[in-house]
Amino acid sequence: MVYLNGNFIKKNQASVSVMDRGFLFGDGVYEVIPVYQGKLFRLTAHLKRLQNSLDAIKIPSPHSNNEWLEILNQLLGYSQPLNQSLYLQITRGSDTQRRHSFEALTPTVYIESSPLIPKTKQALKQGFSAITQTDIRWSRCDIKATSLLANVLYSQNAKENQVEEIILHRNDIVTEGATSNVFIIKNKTLFTHPSGAHILSGITRDLALESALACKLPINESVFSVDELLNADEVWISSSTREIMPITQIDNQLINHGKIGTYWECVYNHYQQLKND
Amino acid sequence: MVYLNGNFIKKNQASVSVMDRGFLFGDGVYEVIPVYQGKLFRLTAHLKRLQNSLDAIKIPSPHSNNEWLEILNQLLGYSQPLNQSLYLQITRGSDTQRRHSFEALTPTVYIESSPLIPKTKQALKQGFSAITQTDIRWSRCDIKATSLLANVLYSQNAKENQVEEIILHRNDIVTEGATSNVFIIKNKTLFTHPSGAHILSGITRDLALESALACKLPINESVFSVDELLNADEVWISSSTREIMPITQIDNQLINHGKIGTYWECVYNHYQQLKND
Repeated sequence: MVYLNGNFIKKNQASVSVMDRGFLFGDGVYEVIPVYQGKLFRLTAHLKRLQNSLDAIKIPSPHSNNEWLEILNQLLGYSQPLNQSLYLQITRGSDTQRRHSFEALTPTVYIESSPLIPKTKQALKQGFSAITQTDIRWSRCDIKATSLLANVLYSQNAKENQVEEIILHRNDIVTEGATSNVFIIKNKTLFTHPSGAHILSGITRDLALESALACKLPINESVFSVDELLNADEVWISSSTREIMPITQIDNQLINHGKIGTYWECVYNHYQQLKND
Repeated sequence: MVYLNGNFIKKNQASVSVMDRGFLFGDGVYEVIPVYQGKLFRLTAHLKRLQNSLDAIKIPSPHSNNEWLEILNQLLGYSQPLNQSLYLQITRGSDTQRRHSFEALTPTVYIESSPLIPKTKQALKQGFSAITQTDIRWSRCDIKATSLLANVLYSQNAKENQVEEIILHRNDIVTEGATSNVFIIKNKTLFTHPSGAHILSGITRDLALESALACKLPINESVFSVDELLNADEVWISSSTREIMPITQIDNQLINHGKIGTYWECVYNHYQQLKND
């Protein structure tokens, strides 16, 4: 079952008009909310970011936080596994004609839930590979928008190159991954690109920073270069479905001799505790 | 009537799955083809650009040029006015689940036709206003993609500022308009940003250049700054539905004392002739 504009229906029956501005213009925003043990994880933070995205592109919020909570829990009632990933998309709605500028429309709301099976610690400990590429995306990556063609092309490229992620850089500064935030450790300090228009302020990014503090790892939210990435002691990526993942090879160069670092394990353990909060 | 995946149906009955990657990711491309006196205008050039866009994002072309011709003419048969604007969109198709990377899918094809009423010469001669803004779009503007959120926000901004167009610049270099190409005349020479990843190579842009040559106006496809834009003798924008439009005021500064230039009129006249070719 999925949720579409007030109705709970079968996924293969869920359709939108060709005049939906999500279809015509990628004119929408989204969130991915993990559910652990049947409980919505960091819902308030996700709804706050959703509101920021909606505000940034001037879509009026179709629901209050209480209404969202009710809808999401109702949808979860239809699914069996305790761990789920909720995908929530809002587009500006359907217009009567195709035009770039917009009028007041009724937003389209689509929500689906799918089983969430995070990688085991054992699997994560093997480490993952990434490659670096120029960041060709627009300059408002802080908006979690559905105009995702650049990210689609990067993800396809990652698949074709058999790597976990593409790590992006603008003018030699590492911004983030195609679908994740990026962290490095150097001289026992954690570095990650500061919040701003060039990265998405990930909820898991915040939780990774929270976990780093718990592991007594000093945090420096400042930029670092591709060279500093390649010569880091540890590299992690984070996203709500991947959690915190160690990267041990980038552009065919080993990080920390190809072994996961000691800080990663502490942060991973702390993150697992947060999931039970 | 509209065309959707092999069928001619009523527009309000045309819908796509929520799993369509056009809806989820803005993962598609499009073309806008003018029809004058019932005849498809520069169809070959439009189909060539469509193929370039499809190739760039690795969507297999769903139809041969002959098949497109047949479909488009069949659709035109349902409409009355002799002058039409055909909108043709192809997305990567519907997947069984939401994932950024893609598998081989059957592309979604949507085509609609709407009456095209170009502005009269008299209306154009009054001149139009524009404002300049930083180009925040991605770095593959040569792909005519449906991930158009940046363009949507610019067009809305133009509407709110009651101007015809937003003229974009990257590092002080004028690239193009939010939904048009941009030309300036200085010292009896026409300047326009060279083709490349930062602009869409408009079909109308080519026709404007062709018309300029016919008007004995030398062409220099090289970059110009915002300052050079503001101090130009003439400024035009072009798009397939706007044709070639004179801009006489930018950022509250008058161009050529707010009057349209002599070259514009010659180029406009020649363009009207091309439409009858």
